[in-house]
Amino acid sequence: MAKPNAFYAQSGGVTAVINASACGVIETARKHRDKIGKLYAGRHGILGALTEDLIDTSKESEAAIRALRHTPAGAFGSARYKLKGLEQNRAEYERLIDVFRAHNIRYFFYNGGGDSQDTAYKVSQIGEQLAYPIQCVGIPKTVDNDLPLTDCCPGFGSVAKYVATSIREAGFDVASMAKTSTKVFVLEVMGRHAGWITAACGLAADKPGAVPHILLFPEIPFEPQKFLERVDQTVKEKGYCVIGVSEGLQDAEGKFLSESGLRDAFGHAQLGGVAPVIANLVRERLGYKYHWAVADYLQRAARHIASRTDVAQAYAMGKAAVEFALKGHNAVMPIVVRKSSKPYVWKVGMVSLADVANQEKMLPRDFITPDGFGITAKCRRYLEPLIAGEDFPPFKNGLPDYVTLRNIAVPKKLKTAFKV
Amino acid sequence: MAKPNAFYAQSGGVTAVINASACGVIETARKHRDKIGKLYAGRHGILGALTEDLIDTSKESEAAIRALRHTPAGAFGSARYKLKGLEQNRAEYERLIDVFRAHNIRYFFYNGGGDSQDTAYKVSQIGEQLAYPIQCVGIPKTVDNDLPLTDCCPGFGSVAKYVATSIREAGFDVASMAKTSTKVFVLEVMGRHAGWITAACGLAADKPGAVPHILLFPEIPFEPQKFLERVDQTVKEKGYCVIGVSEGLQDAEGKFLSESGLRDAFGHAQLGGVAPVIANLVRERLGYKYHWAVADYLQRAARHIASRTDVAQAYAMGKAAVEFALKGHNAVMPIVVRKSSKPYVWKVGMVSLADVANQEKMLPRDFITPDGFGITAKCRRYLEPLIAGEDFPPFKNGLPDYVTLRNIAVPKKLKTAFKV
Repeated sequence: MAKPNAFYAQSGGVTAVINASACGVIETARKHRDKIGKLYAGRHGILGALTEDLIDTSKESEAAIRALRHTPAGAFGSARYKLKGLEQNRAEYERLIDVFRAHNIRYFFYNGGGDSQDTAYKVSQIGEQLAYPIQCVGIPKTVDNDLPLTDCCPGFGSVAKYVATSIREAGFDVASMAKTSTKVFVLEVMGRHAGWITAACGLAADKPGAVPHILLFPEIPFEPQKFLERVDQTVKEKGYCVIGVSEGLQDAEGKFLSESGLRDAFGHAQLGGVAPVIANLVRERLGYKYHWAVADYLQRAARHIASRTDVAQAYAMGKAAVEFALKGHNAVMPIVVRKSSKPYVWKVGMVSLADVANQEKMLPRDFITPDGFGITAKCRRYLEPLIAGEDFPPFKNGLPDYVTLRNIAVPKKLKTAFKV
Repeated sequence: MAKPNAFYAQSGGVTAVINASACGVIETARKHRDKIGKLYAGRHGILGALTEDLIDTSKESEAAIRALRHTPAGAFGSARYKLKGLEQNRAEYERLIDVFRAHNIRYFFYNGGGDSQDTAYKVSQIGEQLAYPIQCVGIPKTVDNDLPLTDCCPGFGSVAKYVATSIREAGFDVASMAKTSTKVFVLEVMGRHAGWITAACGLAADKPGAVPHILLFPEIPFEPQKFLERVDQTVKEKGYCVIGVSEGLQDAEGKFLSESGLRDAFGHAQLGGVAPVIANLVRERLGYKYHWAVADYLQRAARHIASRTDVAQAYAMGKAAVEFALKGHNAVMPIVVRKSSKPYVWKVGMVSLADVANQEKMLPRDFITPDGFGITAKCRRYLEPLIAGEDFPPFKNGLPDYVTLRNIAVPKKLKTAFKV
């Protein structure tokens, strides 16, 4: 019998280190050629499995796979696509099995966040329900850091390092200029539901009074008056005020601030951009000169300032996923287990996908200061190790030298197409 | 007679490397203690001179001064303040001389852009006109790269490296996601009048078809129809489209796009933010899902990804300024002279401030492709050496370890205050 093959797919929003997990998966699979035949990747994630658009990773050189470790985003393409339940869309699962059977795929590695681990869990169940033996292992990934059970999510540490670095640097700028120019600076960061990335901005404030002065969390309903008073007080005391705000900031009625204010010339609501809303509020009510920045994809793609810890964990999760599969596990996911914070010691653990799927880990209230505008010492103790260490990519002609894979398609074996 | 003292001030918008110039000035002055007594810095630039708020840099340790080389923004505070002509505001010049005389200041080093060099030039003239001997040397600085005569301006190479790196990284992200999500990404960069920073985005496109696909320069009037056709064509061919846009993009009537569209809930125009205007236009007319980012101060403060070439030139300009002064020059500015592009060889030159003041060096038309959406090979040849090499700052606890100086004030000697 031919050696079983494996399938790997990237899912959901990409990160600076999801390719480091891919690197861990592929390099580990290559070390076990006696047990795993080919490792196929889904072009555009799970869509690649449904449409039988598989990439043969064996066509990539060792150097190219090694370079994945320092290349941001999803080298095989990712997808925002959630499988429905087996009852609602049995055809999708039957198609997956058709493709897996045609290509002798017995291992399924799915690299994503909460929604994706739900998909991974559902796929893990089809072995029993549709009588096709497949071992399914999830690999955690999300900049939002909102997966349960794991100490942190690969992808988060690097975005955390980026936003803390960026707000510190912008803070030095504003401090220089405040006497005659900009007095209030607002940086908008990701994290629509959970304030982990907003909290990470607070790491820059490692001395009393240091930047950022105010954080606006999605967990804390926005109170304009209280906020404006704090801004005014900060400008009067320090000469300037630097603010980090979550894209998911909501008012007391649960309405996103980003959708509340701005309209284009045609009267349509402007999607996205809470920073300009906050900045305009400061101008209208306090009259201070302001600047604002929206980092958007820059923050989650910023491999040039990735956390060494994050890269190592991302790689370790990919490696562990293959090792778990080879040990016979199904419906599991490797996690990061923290042994201690100072010094930071972590190891790889394992949890059941059934316990992971569709749960969000929110920022605990005791990670936010009582006034709602900052992070506590407990939060700092948790976050600090996750941004530790640098892992600069190689540079060529002054720019990070990232790899683009050949991504050669596996010849199709099925006669039927599948419409997704 | 007491040794003459020197005055150094930072002026205008700060950069990732203006402190490297300060480092060059101070370290060089310290090597010539036989000729220069104290080096005073103006707190908040020229305001420090007018208000007799001088910082005694001799109170800073060698290590602190060395750390200026890797610290962004203006360590002594900068100012947006332009001196009027001697005829319009003689009182200001007389005050400067009062302060200089009281503190035996005979050297004036002024670190800034076009406006600032105009101020430096005016100050250089007061020796003759108001009978106070002072040697005045400008030090070039501006992220906009718009000073004439010098090959480039310290500060520009680092912002260029940042925007090219950022748009490349965001491009990898969008490429991963485009199949099921974002198809158009817009990054807004600085450079209100000259498109040098926009052009620098184009450095990321070092292979045919690579990101960015479209650049929108302030020098090229925006034609919505032509732009939308190119976006549509790019998405259809490549699956996605990445755009770099100058904050100073104007329509055919010379109106800033950033001021043309968005209004807040009260109907007030939203200041700043051409990226959301462009992104909304794409959504309205083509229906593609988009994301946008506005880097704002992040780009000019990003010392963590500074260009090694830029840092070296910034330091060299500061060092040369002191050396020029010691050789007896007045009303001059050191510049970067390019000897060759491949390999990149440069040396320090000298020009007269009279030739520098109030001139803007625009992006030449032959640096922009005929269609107006990209950069030419000639432009790339000019830009590439300026982003070459990395010069990472030291990191501590996962973040760049920047210095904050003690900035101890020199005791005042004048009895009168001065209102600016």
